[in-house]
Amino acid sequence: MGILIQLSPNELETALCMLINVFEKYAKQEGKKDTLTKKEAKTLLEKELPGMVKAGKNSDDGDKLLESLDSDGDNEIDFKEFSVFVICLLCCMTFFWEMT
Amino acid sequence: MGILIQLSPNELETALCMLINVFEKYAKQEGKKDTLTKKEAKTLLEKELPGMVKAGKNSDDGDKLLESLDSDGDNEIDFKEFSVFVICLLCCMTFFWEMT
Repeated sequence: MGILIQLSPNELETALCMLINVFEKYAKQEGKKDTLTKKEAKTLLEKELPGMVKAGKNSDDGDKLLESLDSDGDNEIDFKEFSVFVICLLCCMTFFWEMT
Repeated sequence: MGILIQLSPNELETALCMLINVFEKYAKQEGKKDTLTKKEAKTLLEKELPGMVKAGKNSDDGDKLLESLDSDGDNEIDFKEFSVFVICLLCCMTFFWEMT
């Protein structure tokens, strides 16, 4: 079932708030409230991008992805590292968009 | 009045689609359909981020912003350049979020 939410007329502002909301939703589950632990990040991937997780050829693809996002190597993903992930997703989506 | 749209249960996927939708909405107004002209980009800023435009101290702040986004200097903003703008907005929002 979809979620009906009242969006401000500014779609861009709404989308940005949603991205922050997604990060917060999973970051507060355990440990520090402003970073994703590996477990939280895996849950985020499985819940928010089920198609991408299923498409992963190897079971450790998720771990590799998370390692690559953790650019400062502190075993946690902060919001800036998450933002880089968002950009990668956007570029992948537009790559497929340009192919259609 | 807000816009009620049916969101897929995946908030992240919905936010990403909204970002692409915002870009497409303005990019198709004139010129090439997959890039923003300066005029289209200005309209996007004014409509989608009215608060930010009003906060601009100088009237040419918008032009400076657009010039800085146009990293390949072709006088147009493609989706990848727009994605960098999205990241900057996200980081600004989290900067203020961390201050509260």
